Amino acid sequence: MNIKPLGDRVVIKKLEAEEKTKSGIVLPSQAKEQPQMAEIVAVGPGGVVDGKEIKMEVKVGDKVIFSKYAGTEIKYDGVEYTILRQNDILAIVE
Amino acid sequence: MNIKPLGDRVVIKKLEAEEKTKSGIVLPSQAKEQPQMAEIVAVGPGGVVDGKEIKMEVKVGDKVIFSKYAGTEIKYDGVEYTILRQNDILAIVE
Amino acid sequence: MNIKPLGDRVVIKKLEAEEKTKSGIVLPSQAKEQPQMAEIVAVGPGGVVDGKEIKMEVKVGDKVIFSKYAGTEIKYDGVEYTILRQNDILAIVE
Amino acid sequence: MNIKPLGDRVVIKKLEAEEKTKSGIVLPSQAKEQPQMAEIVAVGPGGVVDGKEIKMEVKVGDKVIFSKYAGTEIKYDGVEYTILRQNDILAIVE
Amino acid sequence: MNIKPLGDRVVIKKLEAEEKTKSGIVLPSQAKEQPQMAEIVAVGPGGVVDGKEIKMEVKVGDKVIFSKYAGTEIKYDGVEYTILRQNDILAIVE
Amino acid sequence: MNIKPLGDRVVIKKLEAEEKTKSGIVLPSQAKEQPQMAEIVAVGPGGVVDGKEIKMEVKVGDKVIFSKYAGTEIKYDGVEYTILRQNDILAIVE
Amino acid sequence: MNIKPLGDRVVIKKLEAEEKTKSGIVLPSQAKEQPQMAEIVAVGPGGVVDGKEIKMEVKVGDKVIFSKYAGTEIKYDGVEYTILRQNDILAIVE
Repeated sequence: MNIKPLGDRVVIKKLEAEEKTKSGIVLPSQAKEQPQMAEIVAVGPGGVVDGKEIKMEVKVGDKVIFSKYAGTEIKYDGVEYTILRQNDILAIVE
Repeated sequence: MNIKPLGDRVVIKKLEAEEKTKSGIVLPSQAKEQPQMAEIVAVGPGGVVDGKEIKMEVKVGDKVIFSKYAGTEIKYDGVEYTILRQNDILAIVE
Repeated sequence: MNIKPLGDRVVIKKLEAEEKTKSGIVLPSQAKEQPQMAEIVAVGPGGVVDGKEIKMEVKVGDKVIFSKYAGTEIKYDGVEYTILRQNDILAIVE
Repeated sequence: MNIKPLGDRVVIKKLEAEEKTKSGIVLPSQAKEQPQMAEIVAVGPGGVVDGKEIKMEVKVGDKVIFSKYAGTEIKYDGVEYTILRQNDILAIVE
Repeated sequence: MNIKPLGDRVVIKKLEAEEKTKSGIVLPSQAKEQPQMAEIVAVGPGGVVDGKEIKMEVKVGDKVIFSKYAGTEIKYDGVEYTILRQNDILAIVE
Repeated sequence: MNIKPLGDRVVIKKLEAEEKTKSGIVLPSQAKEQPQMAEIVAVGPGGVVDGKEIKMEVKVGDKVIFSKYAGTEIKYDGVEYTILRQNDILAIVE
Repeated sequence: MNIKPLGDRVVIKKLEAEEKTKSGIVLPSQAKEQPQMAEIVAVGPGGVVDGKEIKMEVKVGDKVIFSKYAGTEIKYDGVEYTILRQNDILAIVE
């Protein structure tokens, strides 16, 4: 991918329903913050962001749970991605 | 559990009514912040979160009181969990 | 008590009317912030909370004045307690 | 007085009209923030409050001007006092 | 003057119309923040205020422009003064 | 260009539709934050901005994705530009 | 000019239409933040402002773009000026 997120941002691609089922997580539609599952496709360099040292804890290929309303959606080569800050990622699913 | 929370987040599983009774705590339904009891099932690594050094004070198996409206609910293998920050945990019940 | 508050939190038990009278403080019902008197029953370890070093200045047995709307109420073995941060305690009554 | 304010808090007792007249200050009733005069009756230890080092600049007996809506009112042995932070005191009247 | 402002506060006395004319500044009544001219009559010690080191840059006798809605008005020996923070002073008129 | 942005600001020029198509990114009109693509035409010096050390990570010529509502629009020699902070740039498209 | 701005403030004088045309910048009236052009006529000393070290990056004579709604307008010897913080200046036009 040739999109390089700045600072502590990452680019993620949402997982389809069958992928979620395989990893055993169901995210209920009535959830308060509407979390979703996604795969990390690009990771920013981290470093000093807003005057705070940020170490990137996720890497490309990680499957993660994130808050649905976080970030900015873009479409690239016909695929939808979301650019968001690492802080909006709740957990890695291994 | 294969959910690995990031930063100062933890994964908890709410305790059922009989478990609460056994540990002697009743959380009144008319409480202002509606605290609940839960068991810790996964703990993030802590470290520098939002530029502040966070030391994790809870561990897997701890029974805790937390504010009901904190965090994000997920369902995994048919069980409901909540991902929240350690700061939203009020106390450990020993 | 087997409730161990985290960080800079304390557990308090509100004082009854006769106890307040004995210590000579009357908290007027029309007060703007509705302060109340309570006794400290458990004290968190303090330490670094939200990136700030907090030293606990209250101890179990202290009678304190606190702001009525602060904290979270719980019921334990039939008794009501409040979990709140040390910063919500205004003064110790000696 | 056996009320010991915590952190950077102080306990003050409002001055009566004749006392204000003697010290030569009239606080107009239509003032925007409604300042008032009071005498300091107890002073907290200062130290690190909310992660900031606070040095107490007022002492018991000081006559001060403070913002009327600051702090919490309590009644002790039939006398009304206010507990407020040193930062809500505007000036010392000498 | 026997009013000693605390921290980074100063006491100012508003200038009358003729004084403003002499110094050549007219403050338009329709201005957005309604600045006014005043003379400094007392200066706090500065030092650490809200955890930040503040150096006082104004001195008694300085004529200054300040934002009209800043500070607290008091009346002393029949004269009106305003207590405000140095940060609410925009400029010194020399 | 003779516009020199201050601090951590940059000047950008929005890319036309054909340019976006070439780089393969389509930004959907119904997007929540309405990101857009632009080219960097001037970069501020960075340094200490609002008390935080900011290192500039973009350079003139970079194609970037930014949030549509960020910044201030100006017109220079008949061309529209936007001045915004580096923090409002989400990613570089390479 | 005998107006000496405090801290990180500067005094600016708005440029007339013909001056803007000469420097080639047109600021559209429908712009979101309504930027304007001005010339710097006085510069504060900078230094520690609100606990942050501020280095002044503009000097007397600089032509700058600033946000129209920032600052406080004053009239001096019949001329209108604006006092604003350096942070409200977007760019220098050279």
